[in-house]
Amino acid sequence: MESRIGRGAGGTAQAEPVSVPELLAHARTLCAAPLRASVARLVAPMDTVAAYHFGWIDQDGAPAHGDSGKAVRPALALLSARAVGAPAEAGVPGGVSVELVHNFSLLHDDLMDGDETRRHRATAWTVFGPAQAILVGDALATLGTEVLLDAAVTGGASPTDAARAVRLITTATRKLIDGQAQDLSFEHRDVVTVEECLEMEGNKTGALLAAASAIGAVLAGADDRTSDALQRYGHHLGLAFQAVDDLLGIWGATEVTGKPHWGDLRQRKKSLPVAAALAEGGAASRRLAEELADPKGRGEESEPQLAARAALIEEAGGRSWTQDEARRQHKTALAALDEVPMADTVREHFVALAEFVVVRER
Amino acid sequence: MESRIGRGAGGTAQAEPVSVPELLAHARTLCAAPLRASVARLVAPMDTVAAYHFGWIDQDGAPAHGDSGKAVRPALALLSARAVGAPAEAGVPGGVSVELVHNFSLLHDDLMDGDETRRHRATAWTVFGPAQAILVGDALATLGTEVLLDAAVTGGASPTDAARAVRLITTATRKLIDGQAQDLSFEHRDVVTVEECLEMEGNKTGALLAAASAIGAVLAGADDRTSDALQRYGHHLGLAFQAVDDLLGIWGATEVTGKPHWGDLRQRKKSLPVAAALAEGGAASRRLAEELADPKGRGEESEPQLAARAALIEEAGGRSWTQDEARRQHKTALAALDEVPMADTVREHFVALAEFVVVRER
Repeated sequence: MESRIGRGAGGTAQAEPVSVPELLAHARTLCAAPLRASVARLVAPMDTVAAYHFGWIDQDGAPAHGDSGKAVRPALALLSARAVGAPAEAGVPGGVSVELVHNFSLLHDDLMDGDETRRHRATAWTVFGPAQAILVGDALATLGTEVLLDAAVTGGASPTDAARAVRLITTATRKLIDGQAQDLSFEHRDVVTVEECLEMEGNKTGALLAAASAIGAVLAGADDRTSDALQRYGHHLGLAFQAVDDLLGIWGATEVTGKPHWGDLRQRKKSLPVAAALAEGGAASRRLAEELADPKGRGEESEPQLAARAALIEEAGGRSWTQDEARRQHKTALAALDEVPMADTVREHFVALAEFVVVRER
Repeated sequence: MESRIGRGAGGTAQAEPVSVPELLAHARTLCAAPLRASVARLVAPMDTVAAYHFGWIDQDGAPAHGDSGKAVRPALALLSARAVGAPAEAGVPGGVSVELVHNFSLLHDDLMDGDETRRHRATAWTVFGPAQAILVGDALATLGTEVLLDAAVTGGASPTDAARAVRLITTATRKLIDGQAQDLSFEHRDVVTVEECLEMEGNKTGALLAAASAIGAVLAGADDRTSDALQRYGHHLGLAFQAVDDLLGIWGATEVTGKPHWGDLRQRKKSLPVAAALAEGGAASRRLAEELADPKGRGEESEPQLAARAALIEEAGGRSWTQDEARRQHKTALAALDEVPMADTVREHFVALAEFVVVRER
């Protein structure tokens, strides 16, 4: 992978190192108050459920400083405003919107998938029940549109640009839902092709990162060409992110991911390493296919059996293919960035955020 | 209640009788193709789940001609376009949008409430599982926005008017969710005031009917004053509708409502007749309050016990108060209509639809 600085400054200048934690903290700070104001619109007890989900309070209602997520999406939204010469503040309604929509999908996906922990805490549906998780998810998705419409009233965006931003987030939301539907439907199948897997991941992860990477620019009046290129950056960054996530889902340590060990294998998730391993067609690939087609012992695999399956996937090239894929997508994301003229500092930040997203694999 | 014709024509002309079934059928016909095209955008199996929910196919996927609902909301949307002199067609994206959002709320509410039948058929979550009901509900809500944004591209609306329509549907959607949250929270309480009940019903039913009654006009460029008055018509119509629905929930025949006998009493629903009866404060009112506060035998009431409770509510004046309330709201709805200049035919149709909605009590 190319060095961040070399690429960020077009290979010429030696820029200051970019602090991604600072970038993310800045985005969290700028978006915190409007995000809380947005959530405060909800009638009780939805406001409480949302505050718990965001990590602002604990189960007993006491203030908490839980993990609200890394805020990569808001950071991208703010950066995209700066990409067209606007201040980061112009991207705030976009940052809040993508964060709301992202958390809508987390609330609903955790319930649909039956996941009981998220960010090292009990998921909202396990604490407040399924109905509240459904309801608050619905509410956050709606607020994600409202905050953009409000941007035209109080946030300095033109009504036309606010409407373009609404289009962006709405399309992303539908793709997000499509992706979750595809992901769920894969559970009932033994084999999923690499292409199907990439399409699902493009919908489930790429679409919202694409919207995040352009929404601030759109609010600030970016033309379609700029918006398209920034969206492409975000889309491929999402695919890179997801490839890394799929690797961590099998080979990641629980302490790092906050998810159960071998979780994706236990759930027989049709992720990229599995799809790539099955596509390879060699001896290990065929053995993997046989194992996955065998209904015997399904869901009751022991740790050593899961470890052996992970080794089989690796032997069939699933791990290295996915690592390569993450690099390819990362590269394509950076290439899209090159199409947009922007200040060197802003470009460096985009490059640094992309590396931050992909670097988790190491 | 005033006669439809007399009022519709301003008390002067003897207009042709308005056929509400024809109005509704016309709305269903105009909205059918775009509604199906919208749903066809969803990836499998969401398109199937949605088609089942709308009554287009049966559980085995065979074409069906199930009850898709009366289409009161689409009819209002089309009529509102005509109120400002535009053709009904100009309101079609609005009609499709309110129908999508309405069905989003049905899919999610049925799941949250654990309701197993709707329109005399098994609810979608009982057939396809909770995850699909969540997912397809999410998708329909999103399509409800997309179809309005598309109206600016292909439907003849200006981008500004499309954005105003998006604002209308988004606000209505959030209120809808607020109303469902309030309704659910009432389940954990013994007593709910009439005011709380009206606020909940205004959100849960009034908001979307308000949006429906103005969205076609907004798409056709109506000014805010016209939009506000039409929304007020819809809001109060919604409250009238809900009052009638609450009456039917207790005293309605199963064959008519498609819902279980004494259903609302069995579920101890805090509906208007109950709230009004509890507020009355006389002997019957106090006995009702005692019964509802008693945890003994909760959820195991026999038919005669439920019939006795219904009689108690009636004795405390809950039935007649709610009947009066339906009439009051109906009258307020018609008064709002008087603020908007429109063709006599269109006004007559609005009046006829309002009567259709309220007439169910008889």
